[in-house]
Amino acid sequence: MDAPSEFDRQIALTPEGRGRYAADLDAGWSVGGGLNGGYLLALVGNAIRNSLPGKPDPLAVSAYYLSAARPGRATVTVDVRRDGGRVATASADLVQGDQARITVLATYGDLDGLGDDVRTTAPELDLPPVEECPRGSDAPPAVLEMAPIMGRFDMRFHPDDIGWVVGKPSGDGVMRAWFRLADGREPDPISLLMVLDALPPVTFNLGMPGWAPTLELSAHVRAKPAPGWLKVRHETRNLAGGMFEEDCEVWDSTGRLVAQSRQLAMQPRL
Amino acid sequence: MDAPSEFDRQIALTPEGRGRYAADLDAGWSVGGGLNGGYLLALVGNAIRNSLPGKPDPLAVSAYYLSAARPGRATVTVDVRRDGGRVATASADLVQGDQARITVLATYGDLDGLGDDVRTTAPELDLPPVEECPRGSDAPPAVLEMAPIMGRFDMRFHPDDIGWVVGKPSGDGVMRAWFRLADGREPDPISLLMVLDALPPVTFNLGMPGWAPTLELSAHVRAKPAPGWLKVRHETRNLAGGMFEEDCEVWDSTGRLVAQSRQLAMQPRL
Repeated sequence: MDAPSEFDRQIALTPEGRGRYAADLDAGWSVGGGLNGGYLLALVGNAIRNSLPGKPDPLAVSAYYLSAARPGRATVTVDVRRDGGRVATASADLVQGDQARITVLATYGDLDGLGDDVRTTAPELDLPPVEECPRGSDAPPAVLEMAPIMGRFDMRFHPDDIGWVVGKPSGDGVMRAWFRLADGREPDPISLLMVLDALPPVTFNLGMPGWAPTLELSAHVRAKPAPGWLKVRHETRNLAGGMFEEDCEVWDSTGRLVAQSRQLAMQPRL
Repeated sequence: MDAPSEFDRQIALTPEGRGRYAADLDAGWSVGGGLNGGYLLALVGNAIRNSLPGKPDPLAVSAYYLSAARPGRATVTVDVRRDGGRVATASADLVQGDQARITVLATYGDLDGLGDDVRTTAPELDLPPVEECPRGSDAPPAVLEMAPIMGRFDMRFHPDDIGWVVGKPSGDGVMRAWFRLADGREPDPISLLMVLDALPPVTFNLGMPGWAPTLELSAHVRAKPAPGWLKVRHETRNLAGGMFEEDCEVWDSTGRLVAQSRQLAMQPRL
């Protein structure tokens, strides 16, 4: 058996009794003022998966971010609210000491047991070939220092969406990239929860380079992803009242739309 | 002081101690196999509002639907999870007897206290004039009998989206309409939670006229709506694996995007 991948080690859990898990939040997911919200979502999603035998796949997961998580020990508790028929719903909380970090509701099922009917009218994300897209790891040292998370990925940005790294944002509320985990670990429904919040916020391309804290993120995993590169697209259509929504779509290497999300985030302070 | 509107009576709550409210679910919101999910969301949203003094407005609300609610007595409990700074987060549950109907996470704030910066790139919904759009109340008797909820609204459908009532669905996963409450009660942030799930499901226009149970719905209220007609647009982009996502946008009479939502629902059985 192969050694677990970096990602699997970083979302690993130690059971501590019914619905309770210990975790060690990894500093490699730091960005700006805290740990990446997608990483926390995948870790909590992994705990929920462990609590729902026979329903391994997140169908819908909603996370409310209460305070910035820090590297180190955390506890995840899962409470199964309903388990009957084809889906089950649970709530979950991630806490550090006496600080609640993130609270979650989720519905899980078995993606293999759902129907084969697929009618996708969303246009598949069109990206230039991987080798023509700038690597995230080629960003200036100041960017990489602010965002150690960039070391977790092999991310290749659409050339039109990368001007922000040199102070020339595109002006469009869009961010697109090819995406893989750096160690080649293939995507699965749990890692997709992370992928949905892995790219820099679209506000970087609107000339607001600060940290954009997520208030709420709801993810839908729509199919098991095939191995290989993912294509990820973020967009905002309404920045107002100090907040913006950010929609995300993730396409797998076969061209299937495998995950969608929408989040509400705070506009960075200028 | 005017008598409360029909809608306000139907979402009214009787406090029963800290964070606990009694409600009487009104049969007028019946549709297909249960009560409308938007109505339940507004009622629960009203309970959360009552529990968070100084933060009256829902910013983000995520509802997970556990079982079909029935007309009659219900209890809503609200647990404030974090209240500090400009926003507060609470969980809430609606139960009938020993049956959990809906569980909710929500973040509230004060929409008046947020910034004035508005940069909306979403195109405002374009509808023919109200008087050129067919009334929901003119639907065939069989439709109105299946959906007493239609009596709560003055809904005027885009002429292109109404063929399903006579067995000729458009084939596009879109549903658009002008919207008001039937008694003229003006919209507010709580009623918007209902508006986001009031129209017939987009699957009616895909030739699937059955009930489409919502698994999860997350709503964002982005501004206080001005008085007058609302414009509502629903769309799905991905029907797959027996489920579909449905996005909704609500525009007020000044042309402002005041609410957005995304839900994941089960495809009707054919």
